[in-house]
Amino acid sequence: MSPRFARLRPDMTVDEAIRYLRRQAREKLETIYDAYVLDSEQRIKGVVTFRDLFTAPGDKPLAEMMVTDVISVPDTLDQEAVAKVIAEHDLNALPVVDVEGRMKGIVTVDDIVDVVQHEATEDIQKLGGMEALDTPYMETPFLDMVKKRGGWLSALFLGEMLTASAMGHYEAEIARAVVLTLFIPLIISSGGNSGSQATTLIIRAMALGEVSGRDWWLIIRRELAAGFALGGLLATIGVLRIFVWQSAFHSYGAAFARIAITVGLSLVGVVTWGTLTGSMLPFVVKRLGFDPATASAPFVATLVDVVGLVIYFNVAQITLRGVLL
Amino acid sequence: MSPRFARLRPDMTVDEAIRYLRRQAREKLETIYDAYVLDSEQRIKGVVTFRDLFTAPGDKPLAEMMVTDVISVPDTLDQEAVAKVIAEHDLNALPVVDVEGRMKGIVTVDDIVDVVQHEATEDIQKLGGMEALDTPYMETPFLDMVKKRGGWLSALFLGEMLTASAMGHYEAEIARAVVLTLFIPLIISSGGNSGSQATTLIIRAMALGEVSGRDWWLIIRRELAAGFALGGLLATIGVLRIFVWQSAFHSYGAAFARIAITVGLSLVGVVTWGTLTGSMLPFVVKRLGFDPATASAPFVATLVDVVGLVIYFNVAQITLRGVLL
Repeated sequence: MSPRFARLRPDMTVDEAIRYLRRQAREKLETIYDAYVLDSEQRIKGVVTFRDLFTAPGDKPLAEMMVTDVISVPDTLDQEAVAKVIAEHDLNALPVVDVEGRMKGIVTVDDIVDVVQHEATEDIQKLGGMEALDTPYMETPFLDMVKKRGGWLSALFLGEMLTASAMGHYEAEIARAVVLTLFIPLIISSGGNSGSQATTLIIRAMALGEVSGRDWWLIIRRELAAGFALGGLLATIGVLRIFVWQSAFHSYGAAFARIAITVGLSLVGVVTWGTLTGSMLPFVVKRLGFDPATASAPFVATLVDVVGLVIYFNVAQITLRGVLL
Repeated sequence: MSPRFARLRPDMTVDEAIRYLRRQAREKLETIYDAYVLDSEQRIKGVVTFRDLFTAPGDKPLAEMMVTDVISVPDTLDQEAVAKVIAEHDLNALPVVDVEGRMKGIVTVDDIVDVVQHEATEDIQKLGGMEALDTPYMETPFLDMVKKRGGWLSALFLGEMLTASAMGHYEAEIARAVVLTLFIPLIISSGGNSGSQATTLIIRAMALGEVSGRDWWLIIRRELAAGFALGGLLATIGVLRIFVWQSAFHSYGAAFARIAITVGLSLVGVVTWGTLTGSMLPFVVKRLGFDPATASAPFVATLVDVVGLVIYFNVAQITLRGVLL
């Protein structure tokens, strides 16, 4: 924000305003192209663009030609929200007011390009599963970078350790049906990928103000349907693959049809779960007071991996009972 | 780009220019605040801001006061690059010229905020492992969205199927040492997470022009060191966890120390591999003529999963030889 904005009084005429701006223009004003009409208490009464002044009759009082419906923002609003107001209303400059409504300065659109870029970079880095770097990649000291990546990587690792516990819980089943393990990476990664898509979509839609906290119910229904459709798609491919490999290489033994059913059903379950988790986690994270972008793709994948294993082995216990288990 | 820009001639005086702009201002000009001084062939000779005109002596010829070092862009340049020029030079407007150097129009900074937002959204969606939606999430028809997600999800699924083949290759080892399977999700996901961080950092740095194709050698060395450090960190946590669980629950049998070594060494290898793959894939994708953002976190994770399994089982074959294998 810059306090060097052009100020006028409502009782000035157009000619007086132009003369006054000409004098002010020699000072270091941020812009003379938007001039604010203030009362004696520095409250905004209206705004005139230089272009309007320039084409108006010289003796017209500003009070008769100014736009009185002035968009302004409080000085407590954060940068990202200010950028949104400027972008939405296609403004060149936006006045900033204090709690008493007194004008403190302006934010100009050229500052906003940097803010928008910077905020997008922060969100992208968080989505990649790390702390935002704050400085350009090449200029970030090595140790700083390793710290910002190592923190989240360790947290995700600790969370992912639950997969070892989950797998330990099914160790007897694995020993009896080793063939089950072949599909573990395939199944849990599919849940992670569908979760990554969903969380990315929702986080970006939130950052752009396209989706707000109240929309969660709409989104849960939409993503449930999407997860089901996508899970069905992958299940079809997975089942086909097992049948093709079985007839070509006899890879999966006599119970191959039941294994195909296990993999197919698990994929529908895991992908639907991934999609739901990915779409809802940003709402949960926001509710807890954190930046929704913290609900990164790796974070969602970690949550989905554990539940994915539980889904897979529980499906297997039903479909393979009496055959392999 | 708008063709409605303010044009002046070099032989005009300041007063003539102001009068001329006053007449032009009534037309639908994009802006009168930056006026371009063109010769008879529409080639840019200089630029004057309205503010400079406004504070200059009225009889001064424009040729003596205009800035002759005008930044312009060819009309073939893509939006993202235009946005970068405007942001870098803090311009309010940027002239666009054709191959013969004739001025065709201007791009103003308020258009750029939208472009920057839109490009960031596209990159974020690609990074999430899907095609960019092009329309706001809530307004994208359900079938469109499922297609854009399903295409990439299926491609990743087909790639991830290689994990089933890799696992099949080690089926005998798995049958002999089921305990090995417990750590599979933990190890491959750590590779995927470190790859996600690296690819996200490099893709964003590329989009902002902080990193170019020639920097790959610098980055490979930096990321190799980062991967090694991060792998070492996770290996330490992983080994500690195995020792603690072993003394508390006797989870991993008599060979627990060798298993800890296997997991630790694999983590160093997989995380280093993930970091390298994640940082180099954007360069490869760009070289092949695609948008670097296509090297999404899920794409990197899929590549890393397969190699991660190979690393893990090969380490195990060495460290567990004669003990479990």
